[in-house]
Amino acid sequence: MKPIIVINFKTCKQGKDVIKLAEKIEKINKNIIIGVQASDIYEVTKKTELRVYAQHIDYSKQGRATGFILAEAIKKDKAEGSFLNHSEHKLKFPILKKTVKRCKQVKLKTMVFASSLKEAKKIEKLKPDYLIIEPPELVAGQISVSKAKPDLIKRISRELKSKFLVGAGIHTKEDIKKALELGSSGVAISSAITKAKNPSKKLRELLS
Amino acid sequence: MKPIIVINFKTCKQGKDVIKLAEKIEKINKNIIIGVQASDIYEVTKKTELRVYAQHIDYSKQGRATGFILAEAIKKDKAEGSFLNHSEHKLKFPILKKTVKRCKQVKLKTMVFASSLKEAKKIEKLKPDYLIIEPPELVAGQISVSKAKPDLIKRISRELKSKFLVGAGIHTKEDIKKALELGSSGVAISSAITKAKNPSKKLRELLS
Amino acid sequence: MKPIIVINFKTCKQGKDVIKLAEKIEKINKNIIIGVQASDIYEVTKKTELRVYAQHIDYSKQGRATGFILAEAIKKDKAEGSFLNHSEHKLKFPILKKTVKRCKQVKLKTMVFASSLKEAKKIEKLKPDYLIIEPPELVAGQISVSKAKPDLIKRISRELKSKFLVGAGIHTKEDIKKALELGSSGVAISSAITKAKNPSKKLRELLS
Amino acid sequence: MKPIIVINFKTCKQGKDVIKLAEKIEKINKNIIIGVQASDIYEVTKKTELRVYAQHIDYSKQGRATGFILAEAIKKDKAEGSFLNHSEHKLKFPILKKTVKRCKQVKLKTMVFASSLKEAKKIEKLKPDYLIIEPPELVAGQISVSKAKPDLIKRISRELKSKFLVGAGIHTKEDIKKALELGSSGVAISSAITKAKNPSKKLRELLS
Repeated sequence: MKPIIVINFKTCKQGKDVIKLAEKIEKINKNIIIGVQASDIYEVTKKTELRVYAQHIDYSKQGRATGFILAEAIKKDKAEGSFLNHSEHKLKFPILKKTVKRCKQVKLKTMVFASSLKEAKKIEKLKPDYLIIEPPELVAGQISVSKAKPDLIKRISRELKSKFLVGAGIHTKEDIKKALELGSSGVAISSAITKAKNPSKKLRELLS
Repeated sequence: MKPIIVINFKTCKQGKDVIKLAEKIEKINKNIIIGVQASDIYEVTKKTELRVYAQHIDYSKQGRATGFILAEAIKKDKAEGSFLNHSEHKLKFPILKKTVKRCKQVKLKTMVFASSLKEAKKIEKLKPDYLIIEPPELVAGQISVSKAKPDLIKRISRELKSKFLVGAGIHTKEDIKKALELGSSGVAISSAITKAKNPSKKLRELLS
Repeated sequence: MKPIIVINFKTCKQGKDVIKLAEKIEKINKNIIIGVQASDIYEVTKKTELRVYAQHIDYSKQGRATGFILAEAIKKDKAEGSFLNHSEHKLKFPILKKTVKRCKQVKLKTMVFASSLKEAKKIEKLKPDYLIIEPPELVAGQISVSKAKPDLIKRISRELKSKFLVGAGIHTKEDIKKALELGSSGVAISSAITKAKNPSKKLRELLS
Repeated sequence: MKPIIVINFKTCKQGKDVIKLAEKIEKINKNIIIGVQASDIYEVTKKTELRVYAQHIDYSKQGRATGFILAEAIKKDKAEGSFLNHSEHKLKFPILKKTVKRCKQVKLKTMVFASSLKEAKKIEKLKPDYLIIEPPELVAGQISVSKAKPDLIKRISRELKSKFLVGAGIHTKEDIKKALELGSSGVAISSAITKAKNPSKKLRELLS
């Protein structure tokens, strides 16, 4: 089975630069999932065939919710789903629970982040479509998962019933290879691509 | 001087229904300001000449802010500015202050809501481009400002140095007329238009 | 049946001034419920027989929740219960739901505030011990409930299944009398007492 | 100079168990700083001479702030200061800034937590009285700072102008010794003491 590759754009790029990067990614692999600001979903789904996720949505219902982003809104913009609970946007658990439920109601997929195995086990019960483990010590770091935490990944693999992805610290082809060997179904990448001088080249390397 | 008319779409409509309503409004008056979900800004600015505002943005800077909506992002989508501190999305004052500052840095206009004269006076010091007073007792109600609170509007007009708009409870031509007579520079409308069976007809009536 | 009287101390007084006011209230009527900062509960329950409520608690469980106030903590300090969702400290509904549940687990009573009849109906389903309606237009105002909103109180009384209290705008004996006549089981008072020059005298007047 | 020892009680203990643990600590060393729930400050300062910190306070001012804990309130309860921005209670930066300022106004000391060197440098500009670095990978873990991150501590020591403490992962005498050697002025401990079967014995060991 092919690994799932997620690229989190964070808020590194705006407007046309988002589209440009998405188009580069699409040329290399159409099955990659990208996470963008809610304001960019419509443009990206219109111009590429990538699988597009919002980086966050609110659980509010239609009507009186000025300033929130609704599940229905990004569904109409053809997002496949939404990230939730990213380490830069943690949600209190009752809010996360409600939001996962809302996504299911409108048939949006959910990709929920967890910072630890303990948190992942709790989130697993909500039955998100994807679960991404991002050990905080690896976020935005240069230490690779494969070198830093092989035992952690193995243990996650053993203790979780669901499939999971590994985020944080993925910078090389070896990191991906190791993450998959240790039991993950894929990886979430961010700065390795979004901050690369030549993102196409870097992505090709990573996937080679 | 012509009154400023703001229509808050709240989250009543999604996707193409947002565009349809925006196009109807544009046909009647291109100077109307509309407030939409961040995910709809690009589409609306592309298809209409209306002045478009986000309903909220975050003060985060580019980079590590997964799940937030940046000032730069909506600027690139050609928003004129952003609502802030709407009664359905109140901000703690230090956050509001920071966000108004961020908007100024990227040359986005700010339209800040206040629930009371006291709050409006505090917000006035941040020098937002627009200040909208929404007395909570009128929000989503059927009681018109003109009948319910003429003295409040007069007092606001006397005590604020800035121009201000009146929100909440605007449902008739008389409400608008009265709000302007009492000293406001315009009005913010929502359900009167977004929930109207025939929004075009209703808007024409209001502006006649 | 005797009316329920709640006095919200807000954060008007600190330390010994809290105790002094509580002792004055106790001399007049031991059945009055007072709401104080979490830091004051222990002192007040030790020095008076009043029924003491926290003004807010968090739903966190024992262990890793630095900076939060636990249900268990105020229970040990002999609070009878906690206010929740006061207009100055609104909670998102999933958080409110979780917190009411936590209070029930440790046998703390809950007194939940609502800003409107619509919100009150939603909260009613959580089965709080007390429900207080505070129409926002009356909060901290000088307009009495009896004069301003007799129809609203009557309607609340008709449409809610639970007993309810009325908050906001209670400043006179007539306000209380009217609130009870219209169907409420009691009232929540704040500035009328906490800002009175002679709180004992004012409270005696209100209860006479 | 003697090292600064901070013991964060988190929310592990309630009511009298808080006092018991505080009294045990006091017998061993009166200069230890402890961080407790706001509801426990009064009792602990009354019964021990320990230096007591709230685990969090709000920046609200006296008056209309139902449900918040004021700087004035814990000052009256004889707290020396407050923790702020603990990893279990992160604050957005503008809120942290405002709260540090409020503490200074009422002469409360501030002990601000940072998760990374980058964050610590930003917080340093607010001039808190104490700065505690808690690398997230060590929080509640069994890996000691001395073994896991000697280079990180050294680098913090070199790059920060202020004195700092090291939190997270302090479980042995060697951890403390190493943390001090590497340049810190003290340590913050939590589970090593709060979850010890014999806290007195464990604390004596740590300080020996």
